[in-house]
Amino acid sequence: MTDGLRVTIWNEGRHEQIHEAVQKVYPDGMGNTIAKGLQTYGYKTQVFTFDDPEHGLTDEVLSQTDVLTWWGHMLHNDVQDAVVDRVQKYVLNGMGLLVLHSGHESKIFKRLMGTTCDLKWREATDTERIWVSDPGHPIADGIGDFIELPQEEMYGEPFYIPTPDHQIFISWFEGGEVFRSGATWTRGRGKIFYFRPGHETYPTYHNPQVIKVIANGIKWAAPNPGASISVERHRKVPIETLKAK
Amino acid sequence: MTDGLRVTIWNEGRHEQIHEAVQKVYPDGMGNTIAKGLQTYGYKTQVFTFDDPEHGLTDEVLSQTDVLTWWGHMLHNDVQDAVVDRVQKYVLNGMGLLVLHSGHESKIFKRLMGTTCDLKWREATDTERIWVSDPGHPIADGIGDFIELPQEEMYGEPFYIPTPDHQIFISWFEGGEVFRSGATWTRGRGKIFYFRPGHETYPTYHNPQVIKVIANGIKWAAPNPGASISVERHRKVPIETLKAK
Amino acid sequence: MTDGLRVTIWNEGRHEQIHEAVQKVYPDGMGNTIAKGLQTYGYKTQVFTFDDPEHGLTDEVLSQTDVLTWWGHMLHNDVQDAVVDRVQKYVLNGMGLLVLHSGHESKIFKRLMGTTCDLKWREATDTERIWVSDPGHPIADGIGDFIELPQEEMYGEPFYIPTPDHQIFISWFEGGEVFRSGATWTRGRGKIFYFRPGHETYPTYHNPQVIKVIANGIKWAAPNPGASISVERHRKVPIETLKAK
Amino acid sequence: MTDGLRVTIWNEGRHEQIHEAVQKVYPDGMGNTIAKGLQTYGYKTQVFTFDDPEHGLTDEVLSQTDVLTWWGHMLHNDVQDAVVDRVQKYVLNGMGLLVLHSGHESKIFKRLMGTTCDLKWREATDTERIWVSDPGHPIADGIGDFIELPQEEMYGEPFYIPTPDHQIFISWFEGGEVFRSGATWTRGRGKIFYFRPGHETYPTYHNPQVIKVIANGIKWAAPNPGASISVERHRKVPIETLKAK
Repeated sequence: MTDGLRVTIWNEGRHEQIHEAVQKVYPDGMGNTIAKGLQTYGYKTQVFTFDDPEHGLTDEVLSQTDVLTWWGHMLHNDVQDAVVDRVQKYVLNGMGLLVLHSGHESKIFKRLMGTTCDLKWREATDTERIWVSDPGHPIADGIGDFIELPQEEMYGEPFYIPTPDHQIFISWFEGGEVFRSGATWTRGRGKIFYFRPGHETYPTYHNPQVIKVIANGIKWAAPNPGASISVERHRKVPIETLKAK
Repeated sequence: MTDGLRVTIWNEGRHEQIHEAVQKVYPDGMGNTIAKGLQTYGYKTQVFTFDDPEHGLTDEVLSQTDVLTWWGHMLHNDVQDAVVDRVQKYVLNGMGLLVLHSGHESKIFKRLMGTTCDLKWREATDTERIWVSDPGHPIADGIGDFIELPQEEMYGEPFYIPTPDHQIFISWFEGGEVFRSGATWTRGRGKIFYFRPGHETYPTYHNPQVIKVIANGIKWAAPNPGASISVERHRKVPIETLKAK
Repeated sequence: MTDGLRVTIWNEGRHEQIHEAVQKVYPDGMGNTIAKGLQTYGYKTQVFTFDDPEHGLTDEVLSQTDVLTWWGHMLHNDVQDAVVDRVQKYVLNGMGLLVLHSGHESKIFKRLMGTTCDLKWREATDTERIWVSDPGHPIADGIGDFIELPQEEMYGEPFYIPTPDHQIFISWFEGGEVFRSGATWTRGRGKIFYFRPGHETYPTYHNPQVIKVIANGIKWAAPNPGASISVERHRKVPIETLKAK
Repeated sequence: MTDGLRVTIWNEGRHEQIHEAVQKVYPDGMGNTIAKGLQTYGYKTQVFTFDDPEHGLTDEVLSQTDVLTWWGHMLHNDVQDAVVDRVQKYVLNGMGLLVLHSGHESKIFKRLMGTTCDLKWREATDTERIWVSDPGHPIADGIGDFIELPQEEMYGEPFYIPTPDHQIFISWFEGGEVFRSGATWTRGRGKIFYFRPGHETYPTYHNPQVIKVIANGIKWAAPNPGASISVERHRKVPIETLKAK
């Protein structure tokens, strides 16, 4: 229990408006389903979607956010650049970020990684096994050898990301592929966790183990106090003074 | 306050027996000085030295230890291999380890790193400035731009260590050298933090900022719950069964 | 000797037009000075500046470039975004990139790092010692314990970069600061090397050891053949076929 | 073609003496099969086994070795500690090391990693697909999306290794597991590459793509000139002199 962390759940929300298959699985929207799943973890959650003004990610909201989760897909390119700039700024200053599933191609993830974040994929009925590769990492807390999802979209290597700081999960797909499913990076003071599963037509975010990993990721990515670095970048101390010391 | 972490402070303890200069600075021993410094942090500390049976690091003690700190120098080669084996086993299973100053050449640190852990050094009266290079890391909590120690032994690069996971502090020495003073690694489930300052003839462990970093390091290195991996390594499932699924 | 590598040297070139102090040190421009220094290494060099059409970095030029070096300062924000997009694309596809000195705040470096790449600084007459921290790395080939520059601008930690893959040089400054002066990253297929020294009012690029490091960096960052990944990201193999196998 | 690299191929050689199934697949021994496979790459190879005096790994041999490959299994614990010490010393001084398949549990690999290097396993008839996760790495040169081996022993995560510097291959197994099959580390001046496939009862080392990866690994791991670090660790310069400068 990590009580009181302020979690902003961002879910594009467009599939739920236009695709019947998605409405069936997520009648309340994916964002609200994740929020509901997190209820037992004691976080303070709020949910925003693409259609909210400024996509819901105003300075007022972000300044009150410890960890932001991001699920997007259809509208990646329509997300406003000013909002991406703002989210990046908050991450670099310490706000945690969880990037979920197709969020791998979001502007914000590509911005923070510096790469294409591209991958292979197949919409099918692959069984996915998400194996733990770093059992000691707190994000794997409460998981066994693996999480098995009976049906998921396949994502395959190469995943064009910078070398992660920590590689926590690796997925196996029935059709013959593998994928680095859970990995972390640090950018500035911000901690970032990418977690793969979550295709919109499968009930992945109803799975308690998937929610457990997201809950663990939020706890891990929460800001922590660090060093108090002087705001003044320009050190004006005259070198003569320094030499004279 | 991270209450109740069980911290075992290991200090070789030989300099204090035979060197007057060290006795003056650490009349209670370096280990007890560190323990005293940590009192306000709410940890449960116990102190052992080389002369304790099995150097104090029995299974009984280690199984009740969340984080072990290690300061050694004169007697590195006399530490029993069976004890080194045992400490390594506990670290790989999740016990945190803080390696302090000349502990860089201890058997246990070299064992976990796989390298010589060698470096340059000079006993002099260098001023040391320990700069924060990763301000967002919890080990830098409460520190400013740097910690300044008026006199310390110099350690210089190259420091023959594997690339650290995270580089938190880098030292500047008056005589012209630099050193990676604070760095972390993960080995198995165990978290390891090396922190440079602490020459036995200087009052470094009386410095509250140095103690603050050690306290932060203990908190960071404490074991956390992770995944429950099956004990059975040999997966005997017949492939025919697997294929038939 | 790594003969025939095609090296494009990009130097903003504005200081040389308007600052007498810079003209004195680099009468031929910094770019041409670097090119001249590299002559003995057998590379094919060409030099471009900000004022060239598309800053000189057209598809025609980049498609014929193995490694690009980048020095900029005054005009970072005026570099065209389309050119930054293009350079990033070439780097991700394998073109090497050397970012020099104040290039740390260039759009292209920030784009590839995902962070602010901010740092502390002081224009003064600091002596700089650039220590080797990774003696086995080919970029340190031919260097001794350190390179000493009698006068340089100071750059200090924290340097807001992602954890480097390899940390090759760390600088000491007379005024009391340290800096991660030489570090490498991989982004996509591209190798990136940041090398700190090179303030425009000091003769740093006339120093043969500095040029040696740049020459080593070029050799290291040169593209190498890798895997032939299928262009098709969408793996359409029907899962039924896969299961039937 | 990287002509003339001196490659020492170490193969335990005991299975070939006592197991008929292995003799059928490797009538000349696994070491000689690898050596034969490498013939077209222009290396100077020599092969040693456990039964050679000092396991063949004398100072005379190692001082003339650029890269050592290591395959062992049955006799890990019988390898002489003095030889392990010696090999480690050569690696830290720059000799490349390729650890193959069951070599993951060799004394030398565990010594250099500092961890158990443990994993899951199953002897069966799993198809293995070795996917490229880092297409730009020279070790993946000439490989496509993946290498497929019709039958191999399964190795599964978690693989208890320190975070690799570079993650080049990840394996998929028909039975449902994944494994970090190709990864690199640097220890001292030495480069280390672990490559998974190579069970003694399967013709893996007759596969030209597997041999290609080994050849690439040898080229990558070959020593390169680096910095000339002073032998003298103790910097005796009096601080007074330093201050007076």
